[in-house]
Amino acid sequence: MSRIITLLSDFGSRDGYVGAMKGVILRINPQALPVDISHDIGPHDIMAGALVLVSVYSHFPAGTIHVAVVDPGVGGRRRAIILETSRGCFVGPDNGIFTLIFEREKTIRTVTIENPKFRAPTVSRTFHGRDVFAPAAAYLSLGVPVELFGPPLGRGMTLAFPQPRVTSDGVEGEVIHVDRFGNLITNISAETFAGFIGERRPKIWVATHEVHGPYESYEAGREGEIFGIFGSFGLLEISMKKADAQKMLGLGRGAVVRVARPVKSGVEK
Amino acid sequence: MSRIITLLSDFGSRDGYVGAMKGVILRINPQALPVDISHDIGPHDIMAGALVLVSVYSHFPAGTIHVAVVDPGVGGRRRAIILETSRGCFVGPDNGIFTLIFEREKTIRTVTIENPKFRAPTVSRTFHGRDVFAPAAAYLSLGVPVELFGPPLGRGMTLAFPQPRVTSDGVEGEVIHVDRFGNLITNISAETFAGFIGERRPKIWVATHEVHGPYESYEAGREGEIFGIFGSFGLLEISMKKADAQKMLGLGRGAVVRVARPVKSGVEK
Amino acid sequence: MSRIITLLSDFGSRDGYVGAMKGVILRINPQALPVDISHDIGPHDIMAGALVLVSVYSHFPAGTIHVAVVDPGVGGRRRAIILETSRGCFVGPDNGIFTLIFEREKTIRTVTIENPKFRAPTVSRTFHGRDVFAPAAAYLSLGVPVELFGPPLGRGMTLAFPQPRVTSDGVEGEVIHVDRFGNLITNISAETFAGFIGERRPKIWVATHEVHGPYESYEAGREGEIFGIFGSFGLLEISMKKADAQKMLGLGRGAVVRVARPVKSGVEK
Repeated sequence: MSRIITLLSDFGSRDGYVGAMKGVILRINPQALPVDISHDIGPHDIMAGALVLVSVYSHFPAGTIHVAVVDPGVGGRRRAIILETSRGCFVGPDNGIFTLIFEREKTIRTVTIENPKFRAPTVSRTFHGRDVFAPAAAYLSLGVPVELFGPPLGRGMTLAFPQPRVTSDGVEGEVIHVDRFGNLITNISAETFAGFIGERRPKIWVATHEVHGPYESYEAGREGEIFGIFGSFGLLEISMKKADAQKMLGLGRGAVVRVARPVKSGVEK
Repeated sequence: MSRIITLLSDFGSRDGYVGAMKGVILRINPQALPVDISHDIGPHDIMAGALVLVSVYSHFPAGTIHVAVVDPGVGGRRRAIILETSRGCFVGPDNGIFTLIFEREKTIRTVTIENPKFRAPTVSRTFHGRDVFAPAAAYLSLGVPVELFGPPLGRGMTLAFPQPRVTSDGVEGEVIHVDRFGNLITNISAETFAGFIGERRPKIWVATHEVHGPYESYEAGREGEIFGIFGSFGLLEISMKKADAQKMLGLGRGAVVRVARPVKSGVEK
Repeated sequence: MSRIITLLSDFGSRDGYVGAMKGVILRINPQALPVDISHDIGPHDIMAGALVLVSVYSHFPAGTIHVAVVDPGVGGRRRAIILETSRGCFVGPDNGIFTLIFEREKTIRTVTIENPKFRAPTVSRTFHGRDVFAPAAAYLSLGVPVELFGPPLGRGMTLAFPQPRVTSDGVEGEVIHVDRFGNLITNISAETFAGFIGERRPKIWVATHEVHGPYESYEAGREGEIFGIFGSFGLLEISMKKADAQKMLGLGRGAVVRVARPVKSGVEK
């Protein structure tokens, strides 16, 4: 197991919540290296946390421990889990935040964190990031085997992420994330796109706006133009060159995105 | 002394102020591990810095060096100090930012940082985080004894934090911090609360709003309901489930919070 | 070469972009220490990135690797470069972000990053921070010599930063950065100022406002007063004591700042 422990949460940066987690980790394993992924996931936004996590984890060394705490159900009945994969371990609440990890990685085992030896002496009902998840990650980084943390769990909870659907003339999806540059990131992957559109130049709409592209780089766009592009998530994005497509369009998560095969010229009037 | 150096400030994240401090630390001790606590303390807000620091420091290993720079008086007459405790050293301006540390930890010694050997060659009058506090922390992490930094100081400056007061039927306190989730954190501790209220279900008001609880977890609330809860600060918070109590109530720091013993039923009309 | 790799970007904190870069670095060199400088540079604001970088790099140990990614031209024709100096290496796009480093440091060599051995197996056209710059930095930290990354480049691109100009009675410059405290940082250096003003007390204007100073510390100002001060950038700032000069004045980047020699009393009417 690696000494690298990544941290992702909706804790923001103005309180001491993330700092407390780092302290707990370093107290248990002073050789650990806590690495911030993001703490600006929207409050309680499990889907956004899942999406950011899945865009990041595979770049870390195998054996990395990933802690993800977007946890509106803290103190209630949701379980605390460790998910072990060949890429490393994932530690957090069993509320769907690992949905996309379950989809992409083969699970070696999933356990619920119950062993009091590997938790804070007193566990609050408001801050499991500090009292449950940070200690679990730190003990994992010391080499404690996953099976010692608690009993196995059949399969963790998953959330139903919005899926693109096939239409009569192409694919319809939606905006699932807006990044800091205002790029509207959709749930239409490069594979889905290629499968339905093929070689010919498609038409792309976001809400009622027809946009250009897909282009191969932001740089290829003209200033002021709105276009599609396959970005670093491997997903179709609606973007602008050096400008903020979200602000320009006034659209956000949930906006409908349609991609249509072009009608063959002979059929056009 | 530990290689772990925590950093807390009101420097924000868009300038290079925090980066410069990390550079200074790593130049003096390349084995140091700078750990960010928060740099989004409100500008010049010493009390918020003190509160976040006290919520975090005890989770770190003994020997950790904590640097806290909320320093509106930089370049003036306020002293630069190191406070040594059994939990570790605290480095920063003598302006009250360590008030709650003085309250909770036994002071081994407090010194003013005056020895030019352990400061930047030229000390600016605008940025002691870089020129005084970061070097002091780095030299501490190399094992330089506290007493070499400068002469002892009787006792550091403390600020009068607002205290809850006993009323005819309970306790009156106030909101002292609002966290990123919009939880209104009060100065009424679990101990104060228990001492005055006892076993029976109390009444809780924030400003003119009577609220429910105290509940044991955010999860226990109903959606849309405002309630009291003892959060991870060990203090009474006014909260909502998956929602922002600050926005809902339009209240912030300084709002009055009252807790009253329930009147015995026989006395009620 | 150092294991310390600093990261500066306009990637913000709510997506996984910075996290992905850290993952790539740690996968190639698990002993590297990624150190955040700032990720809140304004989107596409190369000048702000250049300014923050130059305020920070010299504080780090010699040999530090500095990655700076403000990269609106990603995927287009701009080159990816490594700039080697006696202070360490700078890795990023060749778009002017290293303008102020070229000015201040003697270049040992500059190369374009072209060797596919030291990049991601597949290089996207949207995220060279992850696919080109992070791998280059990590391989540098493992000791790969700069010349192996690609062919030498005569000189990197530089941007024309606004320069102060001499006027009939002093110097005219402008605000080039506003920090998180609302200090308006100008392009008038302490040397420029001293050269034109000399010993006598000058007059200072920002836009149409005459301000006091220059003072030696923020602390020296009176509350509510606007004054000049030479801050930690070594540049004239327009500031207030414990308050936000930007908000008070409603001014920002580009605002004209004039400094005038005082007229000799005998000449005044």
